[in-house]
Amino acid sequence: MTKKMFASDNNSGIHPAILEAIAQANEGHVPAYGSDFYTAAAINKFKEHFGEQCDVAFVFNGTGANVTGLKAMVRSHQAIICTDGAHINSDEGGAAEGIIGCKLLTVPSADGKLTTSGIEQHLHNIGNQQRSQPKAVSISQCTERGTVYTIDEIKEITRFAHDNGLYIHMDGARLSNAAAHLGCSLAEMTVDAGIDMLAFGGTKNGLMMGEAVVCFNKELASEIKYIRKQGMQLGSKMRFIAAQFDRLLTGELWLDNAGHANRMAQLLADGLLADPEISLSQPVESNAVFATMPRGRIEQLLKEHSFAVWNEERNEIRLVTSFDTTEEDVESFLADVQR
Amino acid sequence: MTKKMFASDNNSGIHPAILEAIAQANEGHVPAYGSDFYTAAAINKFKEHFGEQCDVAFVFNGTGANVTGLKAMVRSHQAIICTDGAHINSDEGGAAEGIIGCKLLTVPSADGKLTTSGIEQHLHNIGNQQRSQPKAVSISQCTERGTVYTIDEIKEITRFAHDNGLYIHMDGARLSNAAAHLGCSLAEMTVDAGIDMLAFGGTKNGLMMGEAVVCFNKELASEIKYIRKQGMQLGSKMRFIAAQFDRLLTGELWLDNAGHANRMAQLLADGLLADPEISLSQPVESNAVFATMPRGRIEQLLKEHSFAVWNEERNEIRLVTSFDTTEEDVESFLADVQR
Amino acid sequence: MTKKMFASDNNSGIHPAILEAIAQANEGHVPAYGSDFYTAAAINKFKEHFGEQCDVAFVFNGTGANVTGLKAMVRSHQAIICTDGAHINSDEGGAAEGIIGCKLLTVPSADGKLTTSGIEQHLHNIGNQQRSQPKAVSISQCTERGTVYTIDEIKEITRFAHDNGLYIHMDGARLSNAAAHLGCSLAEMTVDAGIDMLAFGGTKNGLMMGEAVVCFNKELASEIKYIRKQGMQLGSKMRFIAAQFDRLLTGELWLDNAGHANRMAQLLADGLLADPEISLSQPVESNAVFATMPRGRIEQLLKEHSFAVWNEERNEIRLVTSFDTTEEDVESFLADVQR
Amino acid sequence: MTKKMFASDNNSGIHPAILEAIAQANEGHVPAYGSDFYTAAAINKFKEHFGEQCDVAFVFNGTGANVTGLKAMVRSHQAIICTDGAHINSDEGGAAEGIIGCKLLTVPSADGKLTTSGIEQHLHNIGNQQRSQPKAVSISQCTERGTVYTIDEIKEITRFAHDNGLYIHMDGARLSNAAAHLGCSLAEMTVDAGIDMLAFGGTKNGLMMGEAVVCFNKELASEIKYIRKQGMQLGSKMRFIAAQFDRLLTGELWLDNAGHANRMAQLLADGLLADPEISLSQPVESNAVFATMPRGRIEQLLKEHSFAVWNEERNEIRLVTSFDTTEEDVESFLADVQR
Repeated sequence: MTKKMFASDNNSGIHPAILEAIAQANEGHVPAYGSDFYTAAAINKFKEHFGEQCDVAFVFNGTGANVTGLKAMVRSHQAIICTDGAHINSDEGGAAEGIIGCKLLTVPSADGKLTTSGIEQHLHNIGNQQRSQPKAVSISQCTERGTVYTIDEIKEITRFAHDNGLYIHMDGARLSNAAAHLGCSLAEMTVDAGIDMLAFGGTKNGLMMGEAVVCFNKELASEIKYIRKQGMQLGSKMRFIAAQFDRLLTGELWLDNAGHANRMAQLLADGLLADPEISLSQPVESNAVFATMPRGRIEQLLKEHSFAVWNEERNEIRLVTSFDTTEEDVESFLADVQR
Repeated sequence: MTKKMFASDNNSGIHPAILEAIAQANEGHVPAYGSDFYTAAAINKFKEHFGEQCDVAFVFNGTGANVTGLKAMVRSHQAIICTDGAHINSDEGGAAEGIIGCKLLTVPSADGKLTTSGIEQHLHNIGNQQRSQPKAVSISQCTERGTVYTIDEIKEITRFAHDNGLYIHMDGARLSNAAAHLGCSLAEMTVDAGIDMLAFGGTKNGLMMGEAVVCFNKELASEIKYIRKQGMQLGSKMRFIAAQFDRLLTGELWLDNAGHANRMAQLLADGLLADPEISLSQPVESNAVFATMPRGRIEQLLKEHSFAVWNEERNEIRLVTSFDTTEEDVESFLADVQR
Repeated sequence: MTKKMFASDNNSGIHPAILEAIAQANEGHVPAYGSDFYTAAAINKFKEHFGEQCDVAFVFNGTGANVTGLKAMVRSHQAIICTDGAHINSDEGGAAEGIIGCKLLTVPSADGKLTTSGIEQHLHNIGNQQRSQPKAVSISQCTERGTVYTIDEIKEITRFAHDNGLYIHMDGARLSNAAAHLGCSLAEMTVDAGIDMLAFGGTKNGLMMGEAVVCFNKELASEIKYIRKQGMQLGSKMRFIAAQFDRLLTGELWLDNAGHANRMAQLLADGLLADPEISLSQPVESNAVFATMPRGRIEQLLKEHSFAVWNEERNEIRLVTSFDTTEEDVESFLADVQR
Repeated sequence: MTKKMFASDNNSGIHPAILEAIAQANEGHVPAYGSDFYTAAAINKFKEHFGEQCDVAFVFNGTGANVTGLKAMVRSHQAIICTDGAHINSDEGGAAEGIIGCKLLTVPSADGKLTTSGIEQHLHNIGNQQRSQPKAVSISQCTERGTVYTIDEIKEITRFAHDNGLYIHMDGARLSNAAAHLGCSLAEMTVDAGIDMLAFGGTKNGLMMGEAVVCFNKELASEIKYIRKQGMQLGSKMRFIAAQFDRLLTGELWLDNAGHANRMAQLLADGLLADPEISLSQPVESNAVFATMPRGRIEQLLKEHSFAVWNEERNEIRLVTSFDTTEEDVESFLADVQR
């Protein structure tokens, strides 16, 4: 049997219920490009969670979801404010610059969170034609460092953004994990907290593939479908993305998957903390554990396990759990840590 | 039971063997982004068909496959020559202009085929800085009009292109249908015929989703992976695209699916031709039938069937068959035609 | 003494009064980037001609003026409708596609004019996400074929454009020549006729260099300065472009220059028409003469004169006069034609 | 008489000899777009300074020169390494991102200089498709902080860049000032020191307007003319940019202008240093003086003088001298400082 990996939650496969939903949608012919009833049904599920007023566009992957939403917010001479470690800045191959043509204004962040004072650093030279004009803020929930904004923190940022004429985007590739951590609904962290545009993640929470652009601001909604198509994110057999999301958002599968992954991360962290040579470098608030340990032990572990060395200099590793990580997987890893 | 549609081959679902391959790949954890053995195995299958020298990059959809391949060929100040009805010109939401930033130089074509004399029309002002410089030719096999280039026709174009310093790209969204028609291998129409870059279609031939950029020209290969990522076409759970292609190219599933669709199209065409009011407007060489009939009959048929009215003025319709179109589906449609 | 050329009106130099204006502006220090009183004064001159409500941005060249104005009108997934011979389509090195990222939808035109029925050909698939959505129309006054729209023709197009939700742009690289032909004001052909955005030409009418983006539609004005800067069209020593325009629009220099060039073109055309082997291929309405003559005579003339062979197959040449073309220049050319 | 400003060297006008050169070039007709003998002559002057092997393309402004050169070096999925205060990063309205589509990887720099260790910080994840791949380094000579790289410093950077497969670009908007400071030729700091591509400034050194892209690396040269045109940087009446450069590079006008400006900056600095409340925040190596003084005195000075408050928090101002700054201008300013 294959060992479970802790390299990323996209090393996992498809949740069985999701795969079954794909199979069930594989019946006869339906219109392509989203004009089918599977897509309509899935959009309705989003409305149940996020309210009637949202607009939903399914796309293929996280970069596609982020860039499609952000391109509806900014023009090329404008700028997006985000942390230096934001996925849109450091892990999307320059898609924001290449596809939107805009500048990213980054703020250093140790815990992955953006703050209003960080945003404020870039709010100078407004109206100065020599400078890319800030027009949007993007935050990640959970952050790329595994931390989770409280609802109040989000509200403070959205209020500040709106007060300064900025739209606010959320990269929610792992939004369900944040909900599981906060014990709140998906709406409370997003539309109710003032978010204008959301990239809602499915792939990292048990889908085969599929992300959703969820727009809460009507003035930004009308061009998304064209941006999606030009951005090569319009799937023809859309029903198979839609059916996955429909199933994910039915009952509490989205929450169960995320909550389980979070618990496995906590279990992992607890085990690591028992070792005097190991420290956590970030609080464990989602399904990621950031820890430091002696270099030799990292190298030993890498012989048998798959995970990311986050920061070579600091001997910091990142361990990510998934919906299908088991207690045995965690214990087996911890046992190898102790060997 | 749902009626089969003749609107497009992407109205069909997933071939059962492909769905089974997805399920079989859903085992444990594997590395993401293509570093897994499913992807390696699928690429090997491509090498069996296209030769050891090809490079393969899996992407999500046809627009993604075309634009990724073409962006490796041209810079923004260069131009791509294609027919006016080429998918890259008329059905990709301006992706070539938006993502590559280049100009498309179009040639009118009644049957969807490009000719060397058509290409030649645009080979003036070479070296003139005021003009987008032609650098690539793109042809579609099958064409958007259902016709199929002979191997000799392809060779004539690739020779002409290369003689004039142009790369040659093939949009092979329905390449398998062309192979079924010509009775030749996939390589004979592509790498052996001088094609530099291929977009090989899976979605229209029974896949849930998945297309492949296949590069035969080593000087164009090195940047594709970066172009794919920046173009938002890199899937994280890559194994599930790879496993579909692996299955499609195992045995003759790709050919069986395409050949069946072609036969259904022929059956449909034969039935239509029996009607004195109906004419075929294109030869039937793949899985598409273009026909003209009195307007009233078109409108009557549209009440119960789904298909494209290709040209309102000419009363021309397009009917597309799929791997899962049955003889009963065809007969049922023909019966309604006669009613 | 150098022979005058008929290749283009940009083969001419600087009108002496314009050069003097540059020299006069060369006094001391002034703020850069347009915050100087020369620029303010020049903008006021534009307001005298075009009305108080216009916004003016000076740029370097015609391509810069066209693209800056058009980029304020369309996003990359939208399209601009123009003639196939429009300068923005055939002579700007793919700037529209490269800098705006949008598609140009072209209409064949023998006389360089666009018609409402030509525009209408592209008004299908509105709302279809697969297609670049038409959002602007661009016409050239004078056209690239030397013809001039009547005011009624312009009004018909702007009305049709606005009725269909399209902005209307005018490439006025030779607008003064059109005014001289029509005997109307600059405003009558533009703001009064419903134009939203104008590229007003200076270089071809006696300036050393300088064009102006003139915006008549307030909803399009706010982003022009940022588009200009990002588009590399913001001059630092702006006063020297502004001073040229100020002088051009003072008194009737703009009209005198253009009117003179038009008269020289008429003189040239009259002389050519006296020859039974020569025909005019376009009516002479501005400072360009399009004529056909036997190939041998074209080749003979090219030995001593500079002009464009417009269409090799039709043996068609283009002769362009300028503000500094003299009767002697014309007669000398005509004498060589007769030799 | 207008007071001289210390806000920027582009607040100055045209050097009289340059204006005279424009007037002298205003004779008759010549071919447009650079096919004239003025342009040929000016290019020859560049070859005298930079060697026979260089390629020269004249453009309108500094942003145009930088972006044109850089676009020949990198594709959109690649990245350019520069300081955070580099003009291409902070003062060009997002042109690099918008026109090239690439990412800028910035290095904090107090004195405006880039170091090999700063570059090295970004040389990780090479070959990782998720990251924009570094392909070029851009340095400014003089820097935006008025400092000047020694020739050895430049050579160390170019060697490091080339060793790591990176092209090296120089923003030489004020290159002549650096030559005056170092007492070296233009070639010694550029082509002889390993620079691949140079943006050579004219506007800040007495030209009305005009910059030059000078390419020393033959493999980068062939596409520049197309990039220039698509980037809207091709002037039609090119002779008037060329004639300015021809004159600037004739005799030692370029050096006299720059050397004079440098001396005026030194005079200014010396005067400021005599004041115990004023400190220099950068060494004075070119025509810029960075100084700190009490806020109240800055505000007092701003009532009568024009200069930049560089850093509000640090009470730092920037004073820039020009070819036409006189000793009286400096003394008058210093007198006001002391008042």
